[in-house]
Amino acid sequence: MTDLAAILSRIGARIAEASDRGRVADYIPELAHVDPARFGIAVALPSGDVLTAGDAETGFSIQSISKVFTLALALGRLGDTLWRRVGREPSGFAFNSILQLETERGIPRNPFINAGALVVTDAILAGHPPREVLGEILRFIRTASGDERITIDRAVARSESETGHRNRALAHFMAAQGNMVNPVERTLGTYFHQCAIEMSCVQLAKAGRFLAGFDKMIAPSRVRRINALMLTCGHYDASGDFAWRVGLPGKSGVGGGILAVAPGRASVAVWSPGLNAQGNSKLGTEAMEMLAREAGWSVFG
Amino acid sequence: MTDLAAILSRIGARIAEASDRGRVADYIPELAHVDPARFGIAVALPSGDVLTAGDAETGFSIQSISKVFTLALALGRLGDTLWRRVGREPSGFAFNSILQLETERGIPRNPFINAGALVVTDAILAGHPPREVLGEILRFIRTASGDERITIDRAVARSESETGHRNRALAHFMAAQGNMVNPVERTLGTYFHQCAIEMSCVQLAKAGRFLAGFDKMIAPSRVRRINALMLTCGHYDASGDFAWRVGLPGKSGVGGGILAVAPGRASVAVWSPGLNAQGNSKLGTEAMEMLAREAGWSVFG
Amino acid sequence: MTDLAAILSRIGARIAEASDRGRVADYIPELAHVDPARFGIAVALPSGDVLTAGDAETGFSIQSISKVFTLALALGRLGDTLWRRVGREPSGFAFNSILQLETERGIPRNPFINAGALVVTDAILAGHPPREVLGEILRFIRTASGDERITIDRAVARSESETGHRNRALAHFMAAQGNMVNPVERTLGTYFHQCAIEMSCVQLAKAGRFLAGFDKMIAPSRVRRINALMLTCGHYDASGDFAWRVGLPGKSGVGGGILAVAPGRASVAVWSPGLNAQGNSKLGTEAMEMLAREAGWSVFG
Amino acid sequence: MTDLAAILSRIGARIAEASDRGRVADYIPELAHVDPARFGIAVALPSGDVLTAGDAETGFSIQSISKVFTLALALGRLGDTLWRRVGREPSGFAFNSILQLETERGIPRNPFINAGALVVTDAILAGHPPREVLGEILRFIRTASGDERITIDRAVARSESETGHRNRALAHFMAAQGNMVNPVERTLGTYFHQCAIEMSCVQLAKAGRFLAGFDKMIAPSRVRRINALMLTCGHYDASGDFAWRVGLPGKSGVGGGILAVAPGRASVAVWSPGLNAQGNSKLGTEAMEMLAREAGWSVFG
Repeated sequence: MTDLAAILSRIGARIAEASDRGRVADYIPELAHVDPARFGIAVALPSGDVLTAGDAETGFSIQSISKVFTLALALGRLGDTLWRRVGREPSGFAFNSILQLETERGIPRNPFINAGALVVTDAILAGHPPREVLGEILRFIRTASGDERITIDRAVARSESETGHRNRALAHFMAAQGNMVNPVERTLGTYFHQCAIEMSCVQLAKAGRFLAGFDKMIAPSRVRRINALMLTCGHYDASGDFAWRVGLPGKSGVGGGILAVAPGRASVAVWSPGLNAQGNSKLGTEAMEMLAREAGWSVFG
Repeated sequence: MTDLAAILSRIGARIAEASDRGRVADYIPELAHVDPARFGIAVALPSGDVLTAGDAETGFSIQSISKVFTLALALGRLGDTLWRRVGREPSGFAFNSILQLETERGIPRNPFINAGALVVTDAILAGHPPREVLGEILRFIRTASGDERITIDRAVARSESETGHRNRALAHFMAAQGNMVNPVERTLGTYFHQCAIEMSCVQLAKAGRFLAGFDKMIAPSRVRRINALMLTCGHYDASGDFAWRVGLPGKSGVGGGILAVAPGRASVAVWSPGLNAQGNSKLGTEAMEMLAREAGWSVFG
Repeated sequence: MTDLAAILSRIGARIAEASDRGRVADYIPELAHVDPARFGIAVALPSGDVLTAGDAETGFSIQSISKVFTLALALGRLGDTLWRRVGREPSGFAFNSILQLETERGIPRNPFINAGALVVTDAILAGHPPREVLGEILRFIRTASGDERITIDRAVARSESETGHRNRALAHFMAAQGNMVNPVERTLGTYFHQCAIEMSCVQLAKAGRFLAGFDKMIAPSRVRRINALMLTCGHYDASGDFAWRVGLPGKSGVGGGILAVAPGRASVAVWSPGLNAQGNSKLGTEAMEMLAREAGWSVFG
Repeated sequence: MTDLAAILSRIGARIAEASDRGRVADYIPELAHVDPARFGIAVALPSGDVLTAGDAETGFSIQSISKVFTLALALGRLGDTLWRRVGREPSGFAFNSILQLETERGIPRNPFINAGALVVTDAILAGHPPREVLGEILRFIRTASGDERITIDRAVARSESETGHRNRALAHFMAAQGNMVNPVERTLGTYFHQCAIEMSCVQLAKAGRFLAGFDKMIAPSRVRRINALMLTCGHYDASGDFAWRVGLPGKSGVGGGILAVAPGRASVAVWSPGLNAQGNSKLGTEAMEMLAREAGWSVFG
């Protein structure tokens, strides 16, 4: 554990020096003014300890990382019937592509691209009031992280809604193809709010413990399957690259956060707001790569 | 180990009873008359033991499983410069799709779709005589499996060449885009022969030991990366499904074989000639799923 | 002219006997209960005469035929600057495809596919109140046909709005790519109303006289260009087939109407509600083909 | 006719001054060293007269313009059964795209993109010796133009064959999908030779007289249909633009030639070697546009 602390501090030092920090997402105005110099990392261990470096207690918008939690919720509620509405294959396209929806008749390729995540949220909503369902999502995340302070940043949610034309296009497109159960704006509203959940690296690393197998919030067989999806689809069209470089199941968000797990060993959260060309945190990915290599964590041997 | 033997024998019994055995590949005439009732499985363990069930000693055409060995060879020779000519991302399309080559300017998505494997073979050839390079590929596989009897089935190679219009199309298309170094027919000829290598489940399971980390034929960091590619791209457009159901890195071939590894624990080969809609062995995949579940093998926790 | 009357009456008789009448569009509920047995045809001549057969005085929903009139209006107002926002090429895809919008960055291929027509309407709106712009569109059509009775069927407009998910997807998608000037719902509302304009074959044939060159509502050079677009793009992904079979510039609508012109000779409107696989009136196309052949009308010699 | 001579001489003068002359095709080495300053135009009239300007007697490689003649031949021999193997719709893609072949299962969109022209040539070949079929193609063109001197430039044919990877990819791809009757290399060889036919503007304009309706080499109904195809598909993904700007059926070749017809009025050939982004002669298109406008020729009114 001394070693791990040293590794984290080395990573923090190296990231601080990086000159190319990627580009902060600017299509959601509220996210555009985050300082690209920020960086945090937190590692939750089986012992319950959480090691950190940098701004690990600072809250950021988890954005698409929320898709992991809504998927866990949806599987708990619907089981394998969910797969009638969404696939389990990497997409080969950008996170917000509408192209494949047309060729694949409104069934998104997987639950981690935007279209698929909209279907998952729509499936959880199922006629319930958005407020109630958002409460349930928050409850799930608070329980997972053991932290009741986690909330939604309503300014971010509003900002996403105002500029969310592409997600609206995806949702209406699926509605046209019969794959939306709720009124489109209701599903979108819920989705924009779930993406606007704010967490720190520490909170996120702790919330990922169930995926690392440290507690039994959900069945181990289901955990393995969510991890499989994170590994094959968690980084959009850079999922193969993340698997190659880091070797751990992970999920990124345009807020600059990444959650990854080394099964049985660690749940890790990093945050660096600048993104690479594929929309994943540039330095966050590099930090994950260093950590996995130096700690010897890889699911691949 | 007694348990494992019992698991294999249970799997053999269940597979024997299966009524829907998939469809034997018929686009290569020589493969079309293989008996769909055949089934074999072999598990190579760190101890050196190999457990089997069914027709585990019968040779079959390894086809695309050969891509794992040529990738290992190419990385050994070229290192990361290989990635200038081929990507590392799942494709989201069928194994022999030409579509993405157009939108991605002749750079195949990964080394396990046909276009990518042709590039890998072209990279190994690099002006050398095909006979010599095929000798080297065979030597690599014989060393890995510790079995000098492994050979190429020339009738299958000829049959592939005669019906290989689609692979010819892929190769000429990449040549047009400047991503073929050797004369197209030379690369194709080498590729058709590498696909026609014949191995039994026992030979294949033993040849996969280096991927499971049992010996040090290639560096552990490289092994992890090849495993990552097998997990994200090893089953074409059913790679996500294989990761979800089996949870192990694997590579399939249209001859009905699958090679998978549980890092540190086992190298597994199965064979059942009938394929599913995605071109992977139908019962082979099911056998892998049963084995992984009952043995508790998964890279995901 | 006696000949022409005889031709029309022969066409009417043959169409009445047709057993396969195509399929009435059912995605707009208000259109779904139109009687598929209805058929009308009207031919406006340079002399001012209008010859008819069948239900030529019955009103129907002109739907996409309205795109010709809004294009004429938009070109009158914006001139060639319109082409910064929409292309002039056949699409190679279905009328409501969203796929090409992604690869072509929000610039629709032409003004006659739905996405392109939405851009044209958005360009005419340009901040004006929809009611005013709809008034202008109606005024244009009434002037062209010399008939003040032409109106919008508000029940159809409402029905389209309620089921218009796919058009909403297209509009939001273009908004996301910066190719919508007005609030999306305002453009959509205007578009749904323009599509719900009701006209009879007689009214429509008369409204097309300016395209046939009988009067000078707009400059001849512009007329030729609109005709060129109708010929290459007027029947979605069956435009080539219509040019091949009929040989005249034309525009179809899912209400079952088609407007076509033989420059200098005739403006023709047909109506038969059943559609073919490409979304064009099945018997309407056949009637146009008979008329063009028997009257010897073709722009191609 | 004095007017027309004056128009041609004005066009010649204006083209001579053009600074941006497009880019000479360089993917066929033999074509790459043609002087971009060359320009010719010839107009064949119903009277039998041929008016010219510039290098109207200089031979150039007709390349894809040959597709019009092979289509006429194939229709004469096979009639409408040809359409089982090739479509009649604009493609929406580049001339040598392989993408649509995959989604449309080996049936090219139209006979004027490369894949479609290969099918047409394959249909004419139908087991006959290439030499014989090339003789027939030459005979057809010589008869049409009334000029026995027209021949194939074998150096160009060889150059095309050596660099024809993309056409090879198209042909093998269609062979894989069952849409090639002859051995692939035989069809390709014939195709490369037909493209290498050398003609001058005068010869080409005269060869197009049957399309303008001046003689009865083929039935008028068939002429109209070939013209329809030229208008909708004759300039690849700039066909809509050519219809819009010029308003005449035409076919371009990468040698810089364009053949267009004003039915009943004129058959026109232009030549300027530099191409625009869509692979059509840049100044040739501009010359056609000036001529059509000044002579008042348009099929659209």
